[in-house]
Amino acid sequence: MSKGLPKRNEDYSLWYNELVKKADLAENSPIRGCMIIKPYGFAIWEKMQATLDKMFKETGHSNAYFPIFIPKSYLSKEAEHVEGFAKECAVVTHYRLKQSADKKGLEVDPEAKLEEELIIRPTSETVIWNTYRNWIQSYRDLPLKINQWANVVRWEMRTRLFLRTTEFLWQEGHTAHTTKKEAEEETREMLQVYTNFVQDYMALPVIQGVKTESERFAGAVDTYCIEALMQDGRALQVGTSHFLGQNFAKAFDVKFATKEGGLEYVWGTSWGVSTRLMGALVMAHSDDKGLILPPKLAPIQVVIIPIFKNEEQLAAITNTAQGIMKQLEERNISVKYDDRDTYKPGWKFAEYELKGVPVRIAIGPRDLDGDTAELARRDTSEKQTINQQDIGTIVQQILSEMQKSIYQKAFDFRNQNITTVDSYEYFKEVLKTKGGFIRAHWDGTSETEQRIKDETKATIRCIPIGEQAEEGTCIYSGKPSRQEVIFAKAY
Amino acid sequence: MSKGLPKRNEDYSLWYNELVKKADLAENSPIRGCMIIKPYGFAIWEKMQATLDKMFKETGHSNAYFPIFIPKSYLSKEAEHVEGFAKECAVVTHYRLKQSADKKGLEVDPEAKLEEELIIRPTSETVIWNTYRNWIQSYRDLPLKINQWANVVRWEMRTRLFLRTTEFLWQEGHTAHTTKKEAEEETREMLQVYTNFVQDYMALPVIQGVKTESERFAGAVDTYCIEALMQDGRALQVGTSHFLGQNFAKAFDVKFATKEGGLEYVWGTSWGVSTRLMGALVMAHSDDKGLILPPKLAPIQVVIIPIFKNEEQLAAITNTAQGIMKQLEERNISVKYDDRDTYKPGWKFAEYELKGVPVRIAIGPRDLDGDTAELARRDTSEKQTINQQDIGTIVQQILSEMQKSIYQKAFDFRNQNITTVDSYEYFKEVLKTKGGFIRAHWDGTSETEQRIKDETKATIRCIPIGEQAEEGTCIYSGKPSRQEVIFAKAY
Repeated sequence: MSKGLPKRNEDYSLWYNELVKKADLAENSPIRGCMIIKPYGFAIWEKMQATLDKMFKETGHSNAYFPIFIPKSYLSKEAEHVEGFAKECAVVTHYRLKQSADKKGLEVDPEAKLEEELIIRPTSETVIWNTYRNWIQSYRDLPLKINQWANVVRWEMRTRLFLRTTEFLWQEGHTAHTTKKEAEEETREMLQVYTNFVQDYMALPVIQGVKTESERFAGAVDTYCIEALMQDGRALQVGTSHFLGQNFAKAFDVKFATKEGGLEYVWGTSWGVSTRLMGALVMAHSDDKGLILPPKLAPIQVVIIPIFKNEEQLAAITNTAQGIMKQLEERNISVKYDDRDTYKPGWKFAEYELKGVPVRIAIGPRDLDGDTAELARRDTSEKQTINQQDIGTIVQQILSEMQKSIYQKAFDFRNQNITTVDSYEYFKEVLKTKGGFIRAHWDGTSETEQRIKDETKATIRCIPIGEQAEEGTCIYSGKPSRQEVIFAKAY
Repeated sequence: MSKGLPKRNEDYSLWYNELVKKADLAENSPIRGCMIIKPYGFAIWEKMQATLDKMFKETGHSNAYFPIFIPKSYLSKEAEHVEGFAKECAVVTHYRLKQSADKKGLEVDPEAKLEEELIIRPTSETVIWNTYRNWIQSYRDLPLKINQWANVVRWEMRTRLFLRTTEFLWQEGHTAHTTKKEAEEETREMLQVYTNFVQDYMALPVIQGVKTESERFAGAVDTYCIEALMQDGRALQVGTSHFLGQNFAKAFDVKFATKEGGLEYVWGTSWGVSTRLMGALVMAHSDDKGLILPPKLAPIQVVIIPIFKNEEQLAAITNTAQGIMKQLEERNISVKYDDRDTYKPGWKFAEYELKGVPVRIAIGPRDLDGDTAELARRDTSEKQTINQQDIGTIVQQILSEMQKSIYQKAFDFRNQNITTVDSYEYFKEVLKTKGGFIRAHWDGTSETEQRIKDETKATIRCIPIGEQAEEGTCIYSGKPSRQEVIFAKAY
């Protein structure tokens, strides 16, 4: 009963796409590269949003909203920024349609041409820093710590549900500070917030690091990132936090009066995570039967399914189920009772496995006699018969264990798939046979990085932080290396 | 200390604009007609969103997300819908910029022209009903009750912060049903949800009604609305709920297999409220000193301001303030302690009046001796000295009273400004001298409605529902009328 899902080891990519669709997370729309996020998928995203939003507020950030349109001229103000985004912009050129000459359809009204074209935001640094110029006069106005939940558009050539779509949902934090030190601390604090969220809620271990110059955000001085490993051995960047230096302050002339009476450019950061997290969640944990959701992000944590042959049995089971639901709801466990008579229990079992509901409780006529219920755990498929009065306690314990266990499994998998290599031959062999993260010495040049990428498709995911750097020799050029970096093939 | 705010009775329109800006709710952006919602304004919007979202979920709706882009051809599928929206659409024609020939800026890359232009959604019926065709096969898939929180764009010629902006934030519900009756019930249920929200949270009384044909949503069979009265005697439509009949089902070929084995078009509704509610909130209650926020929507419900001359006094007051904050937070009252030494107490008093914080507590050195505090209520400006240990209880009571009292004041004002007229002369006189809602008999024709509009600028806000209809004679044409309708000049 796998609901026709392809197997991971046969076609991982197809498995992912089919799972996203069959589990009702999202689907492709007829609009090129744009997805439709379905209610069940959106419910998971809402849980992610609510958790992150709380974390942002606890670290002193406020939400605001800036226009979706960016005048073309804004993009050009930061030289590297425009390089990074001009080639994938949706451009609004007109503001009216009119009936076509043959009266059979609509056409763009040539008289409604904009004087300056508007770009749909691919990211909002330009429009926000243009605003910060007015908001920031003195050190009293700083730090300014703002976040925005929004949709953005990047005209990607190859798209994939959640992982890379033309339009996606995200949050983008944009902060301004009086000192370089404070801005750098903010950059790293938000990287840590993301790390905590991804590890504690998504049950996904990450490596924290800094991007190389070639992978840096367009306009940043430093891009920090967290990188996770998917089950097929490919890496996925799940969040980035950028130290912008004074680049955008200079591009948009944002200065502040210091306490001492001087006038200085402010220091900036920006940081974001997107609906891509949904893709990471699916790819990291799920199996051939469907989704496996960490309990903290599961919209339905427990489903109760009655096994009945007639109305009378259903009525008796429903009565029992209501008591169980009460036990669970008192513990803030979300529970669904599926008493539809249009589907058989077996169909429902497979359906909730597909949708990754952490715990399934089945109650049949015989359970009523013994005050029992059958409990099944999604991640391990373990089943047990338990007493009805213990359900609240046991389910709570299982959910908590499952959260840890899903993390531990991903953690062990990730660690088994970090390989340290000391030669380019071995590097290529590992890439071909095992994949995963590869630790290797690199000479620090973009040239070497590019050659390795061209020859193997592996990129430097990050220069890891928080570990003792050991010097060595570049596996490609043989030149000196300051520390090992993390390579992988990535999404 | 009114922070330079214009007076309502001198220039209501200027007062509104300045208040929105000075109270840090929103400001205009350099992008034509688009606003920036500032953190304080956005915090109010977040409270509105959270409350409405809960109400939608309690009535069985789920959130989802659909693409921002609508292919041009979709718009044409529903004849009236296209009439309503084609003239105010932002149109995406290209997907790439390139460096201009003089290398000094960017230009649209003519080679990146879209085959079919994309419209930025002004509303999402078309893209959603196009999706519903795939989601709905049988009566088992119905009702389908989905909501979306999103940004939309309508290219308005004259814009005004919150009330009418090119881009705005809103929610749009889109539901599909097996029967006409069920869809009509949904339409009215959501009108009631909006009514409850606006009355109970925004403290703003509304009139429920049905729009005339000329004011109906483009593509609807019936548009229900709620209308509120602003302090300048003009009406503001604050929410609409549309019964779509089978119009969109037919335009997008959405059929379902009935229980009996037939195949029928589904019945639809859509309904929405937007950031326009923010404008209504400001215009309905505020005064010449600033905002007056109903406690249920105030981001900060209580502000505590220490009155101190030196560090020692501040330390003692802070100690006391912490106890008071604890009392308030235990009652889920949001409180801010403003101990900045960069601003004087008088400046702070005016600042929080401007921002509509419901209760202000001032604590000075003498209060420490007597365990007292000075409490000021924003809506009435009443002050009282109270004992510190009673603060929790008293503040809770005041917040509750204030919520009711703000509603009652708006209710009385609204009722005093409903005038029933029986002649066109009187109608015009009331419009000129008093404004407000005018109840009058109307013959039911679009012709009469249009003439009255051309001659007086007053429109029919709605045909009220929930009251006994009394027949009469049209004030304009003298022809028979089935019931009184509500006229007003409106925003």
